[in-house]
Amino acid sequence: MPLPPSASSLLFGSSAVVTATATSTSTGSAIASRRLAQLSRTLASSAKMLTTPTQKHRVTVVGSGNWGSAIAKIVAENTKANPELFHPEVKMWVYEEKYQLPSTHPAYDPAKHAEPEKLTALINSLHENVKYLPSIPLPDNIIATPDICDAASDATLLVFNVPHQFVSSICNQLNGTCLQYARAISCIKGVDVSPEGISLFSDTIGRRLGIYCGALSGANIANEVAAEKFSETTIAYNPPTGPTKDYPNGLEEVPGELPAVDHTLFKTLFHRPYFHVRVVSDVAGVSLGGALKNIVAIAAGFVDGLGWGDNAKAAVMRVGLLEMRKFGKMFFSESCKSATFTEESCGVADLITSCNGGRNHKCAKLSIQKNKPIEEIEAEELNGQKLQGTSTASEVNEYLKRRGLEAEFPLFTAVHQILKGEKKVEHLPELIERV
Amino acid sequence: MPLPPSASSLLFGSSAVVTATATSTSTGSAIASRRLAQLSRTLASSAKMLTTPTQKHRVTVVGSGNWGSAIAKIVAENTKANPELFHPEVKMWVYEEKYQLPSTHPAYDPAKHAEPEKLTALINSLHENVKYLPSIPLPDNIIATPDICDAASDATLLVFNVPHQFVSSICNQLNGTCLQYARAISCIKGVDVSPEGISLFSDTIGRRLGIYCGALSGANIANEVAAEKFSETTIAYNPPTGPTKDYPNGLEEVPGELPAVDHTLFKTLFHRPYFHVRVVSDVAGVSLGGALKNIVAIAAGFVDGLGWGDNAKAAVMRVGLLEMRKFGKMFFSESCKSATFTEESCGVADLITSCNGGRNHKCAKLSIQKNKPIEEIEAEELNGQKLQGTSTASEVNEYLKRRGLEAEFPLFTAVHQILKGEKKVEHLPELIERV
Repeated sequence: MPLPPSASSLLFGSSAVVTATATSTSTGSAIASRRLAQLSRTLASSAKMLTTPTQKHRVTVVGSGNWGSAIAKIVAENTKANPELFHPEVKMWVYEEKYQLPSTHPAYDPAKHAEPEKLTALINSLHENVKYLPSIPLPDNIIATPDICDAASDATLLVFNVPHQFVSSICNQLNGTCLQYARAISCIKGVDVSPEGISLFSDTIGRRLGIYCGALSGANIANEVAAEKFSETTIAYNPPTGPTKDYPNGLEEVPGELPAVDHTLFKTLFHRPYFHVRVVSDVAGVSLGGALKNIVAIAAGFVDGLGWGDNAKAAVMRVGLLEMRKFGKMFFSESCKSATFTEESCGVADLITSCNGGRNHKCAKLSIQKNKPIEEIEAEELNGQKLQGTSTASEVNEYLKRRGLEAEFPLFTAVHQILKGEKKVEHLPELIERV
Repeated sequence: MPLPPSASSLLFGSSAVVTATATSTSTGSAIASRRLAQLSRTLASSAKMLTTPTQKHRVTVVGSGNWGSAIAKIVAENTKANPELFHPEVKMWVYEEKYQLPSTHPAYDPAKHAEPEKLTALINSLHENVKYLPSIPLPDNIIATPDICDAASDATLLVFNVPHQFVSSICNQLNGTCLQYARAISCIKGVDVSPEGISLFSDTIGRRLGIYCGALSGANIANEVAAEKFSETTIAYNPPTGPTKDYPNGLEEVPGELPAVDHTLFKTLFHRPYFHVRVVSDVAGVSLGGALKNIVAIAAGFVDGLGWGDNAKAAVMRVGLLEMRKFGKMFFSESCKSATFTEESCGVADLITSCNGGRNHKCAKLSIQKNKPIEEIEAEELNGQKLQGTSTASEVNEYLKRRGLEAEFPLFTAVHQILKGEKKVEHLPELIERV
């Protein structure tokens, strides 16, 4: 379903495509090509201001777990409510599997549902993700699609919401499929920390697919959002305006026939009366918050496990919040903003939620109360799922240790040492004391 | 117990005293007096740098409720631990009353305690504030003193920790008693909001006594601090260096024989292994946090009462935190710092504590769950005590309404309207929505 030629290619032939594909080996022609691309972009951008959008965005959600389905629901509500900007239909890529509808389901009909059925077919007929988000009606403009390339190929806006361990294989499958002027938002929590460096899932997706990808993160327990209980989130979107390391030829322009892709558009796509959105530019900060808060949630769980009370818990959360910010500013100095951590939903609010009720907090608390290693609690409580906080604490510690910076992050370091059995929780106050 | 003459008066005669008392009606002599005072201060300050302290500070705590006694305990632990800076003895002013020691008390001796006794005598013999902070051993260098002027007259450092409604009468009693170079810290939570303006208790104390008073506030539930459960606090101290409206002749210098009164000294006086202190300069911010958080705690209680979950609660807390900061910056623009609210114990941490377990949160939650006005819950639950949050919400609303600024503070305004029955809690998300 190809879009008609964009305003820029109408005006300047195929220069925009050249921009994205030229890989000349000759320096002279490379410079000429870059200049041409730059000129093309400048003129295209001037032309765009004169163009009224005649096309609408097509939105695809890649992922259909409980959080993926909840986000697809929000997006589909908004595409329907804003037909001047979006095609109402929202494709949702679903990893196809067979599912037996329980006989207790209100729509169960023994004539139709006696055998396991394709999950996509069930979602499309019942308008409910019966396996991963049961009991939540989904808008009928969500179209569950089993083929990821079919789901993504004509999308001008892509929303990624898959478990982080699948990011790489999904990028492999999508390679070469996406419109090069598409824009994406990653709702995948956290970052990828290795001793060598930290990579953001949004950057990985963007680089691998050759498109730009921002991030969404906030105090968003999926089932609460799906049930339309009030919450907030933060979206970060800050595409580069010229060539960068990840985009050596610059990004391909969004065609002028499409509504401009900017903070306002993303607010329109995600904001709901029950789901308030703030859009910022700090992609690194938004992504880091969702990872580092899990370390702090473990510290808060330790303190609660000891029964130290609300003062102590609030103190640990405050110290942790400042270490999260310090980490961002130290390692992503150019882009990380203080305010992302201390003022936005992805920072302070997500931290509060995680320290009140998240699984990291819960398992850490139980490990102290039952005097058992957290791995044992994890096995008892999480039904095979893994705690994010313990691995993040270990990865962040390795990263800091290699740089000789453990002492700069006393709470992160203390959590790791306590998890390793090298320190006692009772010593937390002195471990984080700054005299 | 007078101190020997200060370095400044040794060097410059009685000029420092002139500074504090001169109230000439003639403009020329007023200017001359101010210049003389300025010169005196400059020279005294130069001289002080050459002087090694030969005297020690005497600390008095004014107040002996549970928070007053907990703070006296901390201070007395530190005066004992730092004999080079402080006289170990800490006087604690106690409002004298008769108290019957219960026969269940471990120290009860029917021969001694058959009749009600003076509370000061019991505190000084048992080293325990048996009425207001039972079961917590107090250091034996706390001397309970029934006469407020006797307690305060030789103190070089005063710590005020009384219920806010007694501030005025205590200042009346102390009028003219305090050393004019004494410095004070107010641990009294909150601020005094009237439609005309907002006054800080620290400013009131300072102005009324003619001395400088800073503030201490944080996530500090008194009984937890007394039990040495870990917590943090924030102290604000920022004495003016020249004449101001409140101190038209400038402050009287602290004599050079005494250790300098600065952030380091206050950290030494209050910081404990279980009570971590950060010292800042923003007295208004530290004081405002302790008042405005109570409005937010009511909002958090409403949300919890509806069972909206952790996302919603964190969202309301985040919005409230930013309104607290906005209020500070709008009405105390010169001095209020963003970081006081978003980074310090007196801001974000105190807010977290209050929204998790404070009485404002609890009563607001119950009022929704039981569908009763909050005043009824207050009467049922608080044993005659009054909620701070409801009156602060009303006072702040009156203050904002008079200035046409209600819409700038949608959460504060919504809490007031819900308390008044003008709006429903269910509408909170739309009341605070910013599209």
